[in-house]
Amino acid sequence: MPAPDDFVVTPYEVKGKVDYDRLRERFGTQELSPELLARLHHLAGGELHPLLRRGVYYSQRDLGPLLDGYANGRPFFLYSGRGPSGPLHTSHLLQFDLCQWFQRRLGVPMYIQITDDEKFWARSGLTREETAHWGLENLYDILALGFDPKRTHIFFDSRSIAALYPLAIRVARKISYSNVKAVFGFTPSTNIGLGFYTALQSVPAFWPSWAEGRAVPCLIPCGIDQDPHFRLTRDVAEGLGYPKPALVHSKMVPGLLGEGVMSTTGNRADDALFLNDPPKVVERKLRAAFTGGRATVEEQRRLGAVPEVCSIWALWRTRFAESDEKFEEVTRSCRSGELLCGDCKGQLIERVHAFYETHADAREKAKSWAESAIVTEPPRPL
Amino acid sequence: MPAPDDFVVTPYEVKGKVDYDRLRERFGTQELSPELLARLHHLAGGELHPLLRRGVYYSQRDLGPLLDGYANGRPFFLYSGRGPSGPLHTSHLLQFDLCQWFQRRLGVPMYIQITDDEKFWARSGLTREETAHWGLENLYDILALGFDPKRTHIFFDSRSIAALYPLAIRVARKISYSNVKAVFGFTPSTNIGLGFYTALQSVPAFWPSWAEGRAVPCLIPCGIDQDPHFRLTRDVAEGLGYPKPALVHSKMVPGLLGEGVMSTTGNRADDALFLNDPPKVVERKLRAAFTGGRATVEEQRRLGAVPEVCSIWALWRTRFAESDEKFEEVTRSCRSGELLCGDCKGQLIERVHAFYETHADAREKAKSWAESAIVTEPPRPL
Repeated sequence: MPAPDDFVVTPYEVKGKVDYDRLRERFGTQELSPELLARLHHLAGGELHPLLRRGVYYSQRDLGPLLDGYANGRPFFLYSGRGPSGPLHTSHLLQFDLCQWFQRRLGVPMYIQITDDEKFWARSGLTREETAHWGLENLYDILALGFDPKRTHIFFDSRSIAALYPLAIRVARKISYSNVKAVFGFTPSTNIGLGFYTALQSVPAFWPSWAEGRAVPCLIPCGIDQDPHFRLTRDVAEGLGYPKPALVHSKMVPGLLGEGVMSTTGNRADDALFLNDPPKVVERKLRAAFTGGRATVEEQRRLGAVPEVCSIWALWRTRFAESDEKFEEVTRSCRSGELLCGDCKGQLIERVHAFYETHADAREKAKSWAESAIVTEPPRPL
Repeated sequence: MPAPDDFVVTPYEVKGKVDYDRLRERFGTQELSPELLARLHHLAGGELHPLLRRGVYYSQRDLGPLLDGYANGRPFFLYSGRGPSGPLHTSHLLQFDLCQWFQRRLGVPMYIQITDDEKFWARSGLTREETAHWGLENLYDILALGFDPKRTHIFFDSRSIAALYPLAIRVARKISYSNVKAVFGFTPSTNIGLGFYTALQSVPAFWPSWAEGRAVPCLIPCGIDQDPHFRLTRDVAEGLGYPKPALVHSKMVPGLLGEGVMSTTGNRADDALFLNDPPKVVERKLRAAFTGGRATVEEQRRLGAVPEVCSIWALWRTRFAESDEKFEEVTRSCRSGELLCGDCKGQLIERVHAFYETHADAREKAKSWAESAIVTEPPRPL
């Protein structure tokens, strides 16, 4: 018999050991099934992103109808976002990695929302200067993943409000205090900005339909903890005359400190690899990271290690094992006891250094076009 | 012994017979004293607006310090607004009449906020097209009162949001759900737009300080029922580094139907003179209006009538008796029984017709510059 709610997942809090299948049931989402993956593989010209192949994305809403539409000449667009409270860490890239793959393989537009207003409302310790600063810094990191300047559009909330607000007005009338209280667990001391915010977060899911004057389907890749935000979006969609956005959900990434989901809130900077960590800090964090290894070398040689609980294995899985062969080799030799944690960390550190170097170059290039992709005007009267 | 709270006044509801002195005590505002009126008279070059002379404005917050500043070369600005849900009626003009007088006599700038978003959130029966339409229509009527195109700036919310939002973000973090619940009586079914709205309504009171990079004092003339909105504004002002806005409050105008404060919400179009009522409708409404007259002519000749309860007398008082001599003559002859209600109404109808004709011309002129006065850009980074 399963235990009662022994874990909590909301957009603002993750507590306890998450059972992802039960979370899917609790949220009422559908499985990202082998059939759907096979269809995606086919539509993408015989390729699947590693995050899809390796089960990191595992849940969805309405992906089937979206793919039906695409197969019948009805293109969709991608929507994802970031609340800028500090530097990005590698697990923040999961949703953007998948978006970039969709864009590259299917040629679809991407809309990115940078919520410098929300983070100011959500974190009393942050100044507006900080959320605006990190908004741009985060944006450069995201664009550096390889988004196409011709097909990528940015809502930077404080600067894009004229483009978002006419539609946000309509969304906001359809969402009550009790709705946001139920979904986000807000209290009477929550500020009125954060309450309003979910209206603004819904807008990009409808914006292209508004712009084009016809129903344009939307796909939102996100961590499953963000599903409640978009459940509200889906609830109001049809009343506004727009299609409900489809979703694909990833599991959350375990942190380097081995205490559950990666989170650097509070004094937990060592739980994650920030994209602006210098090489020595990367090395220090990874050398200290929690693994699935055994107490002694002898024991590990004999019993093997446990990749499923290992923060280093999670990094191989989600980003740094580019080929399936490499990923399978790491997993197999870890489990068998051939690969010891120190060696495994050493290999990973080299891969991370190489990625950071490539990323730094791509980031400089992204700076040259980021500003011009920020949307500042509504597309037409509403 | 005064009765307990036998009347209710909030920005969204007025119930019961309002005792204005008790309301002032309840709200904690100060008297608009003879001393303050004398100072105003002096600063305005030996003139007082009839609404000040006749006691329609009767309450204030921090008017004294504002006038001290003005006398010492520190000019202030005026701020008032309108939530567009339909045509204006004459009592909507009270706050703008006073603003226009201040602008004309003291040369100060005027900021007008048209809240087409708020009214959409507050009235589920209104469409966005309607609030936007009435926003412009109302604006023309307001500007037609004689505002100076060179000193008048308009925030039309749905179109000025880029100018308002950067500051609204900062205001919103300082206001909680429990604040707005306490002030406005919101319930769990209130939508998140209306909750957020008070942040946007506060912004114009601080906007010129933001624009000029120094503390610019603000004066807000309004009906006393709107005081709670600006109490929140005053509460957050100093934490944001801006001066608290000063206020002058008017009493509310009794409706033509004789059932309390003028309000045309619901099917009560006959409670007020709309500025777009044709002459025949004006005449019909005024002929049917509630007065302070007696049951018979004989009784009225003998006892006189009671101007204080009369909706016709309220119109003379607030707008249509341009000279004090006329106003005193109407009041005296009403009270003495010389002037009967039919004759009084006949005289008023002529004055209203004349005003509507002049107003229609001024309104056409206002259309030529209204659009160019709408503020669409923030004045500087914030």
